[in-house]
Amino acid sequence: MNQKKFLLAGFLLLSVLAFGQRPNTDGMIYLDENRRPVLRENIIIPDVNGYKVLKCDFHMHTVFSDGLVWPTIRNQEVWEDGLDAFAITDHIEYQPHKADVNTDHNRAHELLKNVAPKNNLILVKGSEITRNTPPGHFNAIFIKDSSPFIEDRKKEFDRDALMKAAEQNAFIFWNHPGWQPNIEGSYEWLPLIDDLYKNNALHGIEVINGFGVHLKALDWCVDKDLTVMGTSDIHNLIDHDYDRSKEYVHRTMTLVMAKDRTPESIREALDEGRTVAWASKILAGKEEHVRNLFDACVQLMPSHFTEKKDNGDTINYYEIRNNSDLYFELVLSEGNATKQIILYPRSFQIISAAGGQSSLSYDVVSTYIRSNKHLNVSFPLK
Amino acid sequence: MNQKKFLLAGFLLLSVLAFGQRPNTDGMIYLDENRRPVLRENIIIPDVNGYKVLKCDFHMHTVFSDGLVWPTIRNQEVWEDGLDAFAITDHIEYQPHKADVNTDHNRAHELLKNVAPKNNLILVKGSEITRNTPPGHFNAIFIKDSSPFIEDRKKEFDRDALMKAAEQNAFIFWNHPGWQPNIEGSYEWLPLIDDLYKNNALHGIEVINGFGVHLKALDWCVDKDLTVMGTSDIHNLIDHDYDRSKEYVHRTMTLVMAKDRTPESIREALDEGRTVAWASKILAGKEEHVRNLFDACVQLMPSHFTEKKDNGDTINYYEIRNNSDLYFELVLSEGNATKQIILYPRSFQIISAAGGQSSLSYDVVSTYIRSNKHLNVSFPLK
Amino acid sequence: MNQKKFLLAGFLLLSVLAFGQRPNTDGMIYLDENRRPVLRENIIIPDVNGYKVLKCDFHMHTVFSDGLVWPTIRNQEVWEDGLDAFAITDHIEYQPHKADVNTDHNRAHELLKNVAPKNNLILVKGSEITRNTPPGHFNAIFIKDSSPFIEDRKKEFDRDALMKAAEQNAFIFWNHPGWQPNIEGSYEWLPLIDDLYKNNALHGIEVINGFGVHLKALDWCVDKDLTVMGTSDIHNLIDHDYDRSKEYVHRTMTLVMAKDRTPESIREALDEGRTVAWASKILAGKEEHVRNLFDACVQLMPSHFTEKKDNGDTINYYEIRNNSDLYFELVLSEGNATKQIILYPRSFQIISAAGGQSSLSYDVVSTYIRSNKHLNVSFPLK
Amino acid sequence: MNQKKFLLAGFLLLSVLAFGQRPNTDGMIYLDENRRPVLRENIIIPDVNGYKVLKCDFHMHTVFSDGLVWPTIRNQEVWEDGLDAFAITDHIEYQPHKADVNTDHNRAHELLKNVAPKNNLILVKGSEITRNTPPGHFNAIFIKDSSPFIEDRKKEFDRDALMKAAEQNAFIFWNHPGWQPNIEGSYEWLPLIDDLYKNNALHGIEVINGFGVHLKALDWCVDKDLTVMGTSDIHNLIDHDYDRSKEYVHRTMTLVMAKDRTPESIREALDEGRTVAWASKILAGKEEHVRNLFDACVQLMPSHFTEKKDNGDTINYYEIRNNSDLYFELVLSEGNATKQIILYPRSFQIISAAGGQSSLSYDVVSTYIRSNKHLNVSFPLK
Repeated sequence: MNQKKFLLAGFLLLSVLAFGQRPNTDGMIYLDENRRPVLRENIIIPDVNGYKVLKCDFHMHTVFSDGLVWPTIRNQEVWEDGLDAFAITDHIEYQPHKADVNTDHNRAHELLKNVAPKNNLILVKGSEITRNTPPGHFNAIFIKDSSPFIEDRKKEFDRDALMKAAEQNAFIFWNHPGWQPNIEGSYEWLPLIDDLYKNNALHGIEVINGFGVHLKALDWCVDKDLTVMGTSDIHNLIDHDYDRSKEYVHRTMTLVMAKDRTPESIREALDEGRTVAWASKILAGKEEHVRNLFDACVQLMPSHFTEKKDNGDTINYYEIRNNSDLYFELVLSEGNATKQIILYPRSFQIISAAGGQSSLSYDVVSTYIRSNKHLNVSFPLK
Repeated sequence: MNQKKFLLAGFLLLSVLAFGQRPNTDGMIYLDENRRPVLRENIIIPDVNGYKVLKCDFHMHTVFSDGLVWPTIRNQEVWEDGLDAFAITDHIEYQPHKADVNTDHNRAHELLKNVAPKNNLILVKGSEITRNTPPGHFNAIFIKDSSPFIEDRKKEFDRDALMKAAEQNAFIFWNHPGWQPNIEGSYEWLPLIDDLYKNNALHGIEVINGFGVHLKALDWCVDKDLTVMGTSDIHNLIDHDYDRSKEYVHRTMTLVMAKDRTPESIREALDEGRTVAWASKILAGKEEHVRNLFDACVQLMPSHFTEKKDNGDTINYYEIRNNSDLYFELVLSEGNATKQIILYPRSFQIISAAGGQSSLSYDVVSTYIRSNKHLNVSFPLK
Repeated sequence: MNQKKFLLAGFLLLSVLAFGQRPNTDGMIYLDENRRPVLRENIIIPDVNGYKVLKCDFHMHTVFSDGLVWPTIRNQEVWEDGLDAFAITDHIEYQPHKADVNTDHNRAHELLKNVAPKNNLILVKGSEITRNTPPGHFNAIFIKDSSPFIEDRKKEFDRDALMKAAEQNAFIFWNHPGWQPNIEGSYEWLPLIDDLYKNNALHGIEVINGFGVHLKALDWCVDKDLTVMGTSDIHNLIDHDYDRSKEYVHRTMTLVMAKDRTPESIREALDEGRTVAWASKILAGKEEHVRNLFDACVQLMPSHFTEKKDNGDTINYYEIRNNSDLYFELVLSEGNATKQIILYPRSFQIISAAGGQSSLSYDVVSTYIRSNKHLNVSFPLK
Repeated sequence: MNQKKFLLAGFLLLSVLAFGQRPNTDGMIYLDENRRPVLRENIIIPDVNGYKVLKCDFHMHTVFSDGLVWPTIRNQEVWEDGLDAFAITDHIEYQPHKADVNTDHNRAHELLKNVAPKNNLILVKGSEITRNTPPGHFNAIFIKDSSPFIEDRKKEFDRDALMKAAEQNAFIFWNHPGWQPNIEGSYEWLPLIDDLYKNNALHGIEVINGFGVHLKALDWCVDKDLTVMGTSDIHNLIDHDYDRSKEYVHRTMTLVMAKDRTPESIREALDEGRTVAWASKILAGKEEHVRNLFDACVQLMPSHFTEKKDNGDTINYYEIRNNSDLYFELVLSEGNATKQIILYPRSFQIISAAGGQSSLSYDVVSTYIRSNKHLNVSFPLK
């Protein structure tokens, strides 16, 4: 019995037990107050220079490879988490449940083909092509057919499956470089990676995968003009892995700045590299995109109050607003003002600055635009 | 020692203990992870027909009457709760701490005069003029001086203090009618109330006071064109009285639809009656204002999916969006569609409707526009 | 990449980023603060008359019938929820994923045979034998082999599978009677139920299934000496269905008062009927067991304070303690004292009573010992 | 209107609105579901060697010095937080509200004399004797009269007030040494401290004050046999300063191991030094007391499962239980087993250890028994 029963009120009043239960009709009580509200969260991020900021997760697993849930659970999680687009990317080469589950590589996607659109979600077709480390794993998304991808985990790297994905016009990204630090060469720009890159079979890299941030990959993305990706790579349950009691915690995802909320616009944005990887408190991306995102979300208001000190000095007070569900942490880099500003999702702070200054500069230490560099922002003072 | 110490990062790295503490410098550890983040919540409510929706609470107490906190705590609560404007309205006639606390009726306000503006808050001067029930208590706000108000709790009602407030051009509202249901006449439109009303010494009524909704007062506001007020009337701590683990729970307040975020605009809106009382899941007000507020917050999107049944029937799917921090609960009144819709703050739902209909009607059962009437809304279907 | 990486501290100090990240080694940051702590909750319920109170859920589904998770997720949920024992009870007759998943009825259990004991959990073998309503579904647990159960959903009820289960010495209970109130006879003690009962093929009934309380079933259990069962019947995710933000919300389960934490003791307790069904705020069971459980959990302390009124009357104050994770709500039925007492998990209240009384009586309105009767308790006053 | 109205159920049923409100009687709705449950938390800590572990906070402020609440709020916070004993310790020398509030140093305590016992709380009389830093502030508790304490904040330290407190048989402790690291000598064992110590006017030191841990003070306590104290030193609101969304966060307090729950037993325990300072995840105290507390709370169960590897090696699995509301974090120091164990309040973990070992040793890195030393514990393996 897993259906939800709803109540139709005749007019205003219903009989309910003292402790908030629904009515006792024919010997039944319905304990609806114990249910979790089922709803789609609206993650608020303002448009960035006319682009919509789509929340996308293009790396996740189901029982059809080494995930632990039926594909519909992934759809449900995506809907509730407020995402716009997702891909099921089960491993081609690793199917630990194969004794019990269909091994057809197209199957998980197929099971969601009518489910996602009913939920107003964009489903992108994908597969994880899984090689030994180095170089490790690759996701091919926007593919047409997973069946031609050859399973191959020999010691020597076989690039055939990736080239076939490229022939399908896939968008291909390298997954979690650096996740096996003990394997030599696993976190390096090896010749075989370079070969893929030069043959147009590598378009992005996971700078953030789940709870791991791969800062060297950010440098590669910047230097070689690859697209910055963030993904959950979820195998277990989102609610199991992420600490939802913290308001700023969301699954790791890619923020895609797209013209429209369509698969085509997402693909275009990925091709153009208009992305920022987001992992709860951390944003990582190319400077231009991180800056535009910051500017769209954070606003320093004109001074609302001036304090005069006995010695004639003045201190101005300003409200700084975070109009988004992102998290920002700023440390003063230039000027005489509040040293540290923490902007939790949808919250405001008051800061103060000595009078007579025309601007302040802050390092946004919760962002990365290079492995060793935060975004630096300057606020003109009014 | 109650100062907060902040950390200035040289560059990226700091030494921290395994379990997330700040650095051990000279034998000190700072346990900042245990602190509650201090921030101003941004309650999201879109503008309503060009008016800003200001969050106001014009009824609260401090140690200067029967409240239990110093005035600065009220300012702090108001700032953190994301309110725009407030008034301290200590009782003129009831000062249980008078053996220990200054009895000057202007004093609590005076202590906040420089505090509120530094926090970008609008502080309105007020007093609670406290008569026996019936008729009970009245708040006079936008007053200039509390000292001339005569303390008087004789059996017979003395209207002098209220008339003096009216002479100061106060905005006067009747507090929590109905809160003492056992006293005869306490929840009725008595002649002495009518007398105040006719002498322009009564401009509004608390339709919601804290956790009590006074529905008869809503009818009086509608019938006599009085302003609908909602207030916390907080004596203890906001965080003590309200269950903040529920995302939809906020202190009871008045939503004031004002041209600007200024005291003058608030006063104008109060005089014009552009208000809705808000108590967590409940909204109460005149139909026009509740409807405008609903329309600004809730949006039915064009259908994103159509399902064809075997018998040729179609079902259309729609996303319905709550773009606000308010809560709405809808029950279908006309049409063939999803029967009940619960819109938690900033959340979306998917609803379905049989094809071939041009509109749907719902009772918004979480609103009141009369003691026995919910707002009814109609959605054209696209 | 779904492994958790733990940190070995050399001594006291580690390098961590300002916002609590783990160290940047070779270009990696680990965002462990965003992870949900993985732990087994200890649900505190004191022993009852020398019996341990074991937390058991003998009704749940996986992808092997109409559930949406791999069996290991059920094990994980059970471990984290602090349960002692569980059974996977996939439908024999309903396997909507059969195009993709092994249909062997023993398989889900087999996959957990080595997992549960490693987690110190008691795994009991079960199947749901699924007939049309009426009479509907039955769970057979403590079975040896699911394969002989005949799939049969013909209009006419076929009791063969149940008799085969009985031959395996199964413990058989009737699931969620009353869940389809629109079907005639679905919530009645039909002859074919009576037949099973008389042939020793029916030993218990689900008085609570998920969010539905079947009060008539409680009367049947009392009148016919059947065992009271509570189960989650979970198909989706526990964390998805239950509102864990409320401290008192737990999955629905059976509290089994057993001599030891062993399968044998559980079976013995089920056979003896030593159970109470628990659904967050609700407890339902036979009077004897509900009373013993209450007495083990709730304690009225001797009076700690006496107040003397001007008229010579006295009022005594008492602390009432809930030493358990259960929830109790009491309404005064006899005496002159605090009218309502709400005892949240592990919390205390202070109550007062007029002097000169030797005892107080309360209805524990959060319990049911009959469809129309709460447990009534009497406290001697000291 | 700040009274709570309770509901008396005639029998089982009441009329309630669809969204869980209380009944509409005479035009009133009561929104009780929005109220925070008012209850006393039961902090679970097992007895330690026959001593009760009393939760005590002997440092807090009210409007009678530089606190921001009326004394009854402190009583309310203490009751709700589950503490057993407390003292109001307003500053003798610092009364920033003196223009508005009675300056009698005995007054705050007097206002609670009848309140605390009605709530079954132990109220101890105290004052904060406030000197410039160094050496700074001292709390004198178990005093009889605050009025003779001389206000004195001259540059030169005046010990008279402390000697008068000692004459009243006060228990005197030094507050937050190290809180002003920039003042020379502020975190040192100065001659004037030594003078107090030798004249029996110094009996303890705050090793933890609010969010600051003063590790050097722990060494002084150990070396000079002073009592380890932990206090909140709360000025604002407990719920404002502490992040209650984290289950392990409690106000900083002193755990006092006392024979009985009486003032006399507390005093005896303080004199004997049977205390541990507790600040959410941190415990600090003398080795003997921290060890006894740990042993009372944490239990390694006999192995419940053994795994045999192909090479003949065995791995044993054990459940480790935290039977308390304290938090413990362990790092392996000797043996071949799980490296790190995090024990959240009332939670269990499973650990594994290679077979053939007779014991394991762990550093309990969340405890301090010296400024540079954690408790080390050894578990025999069964």
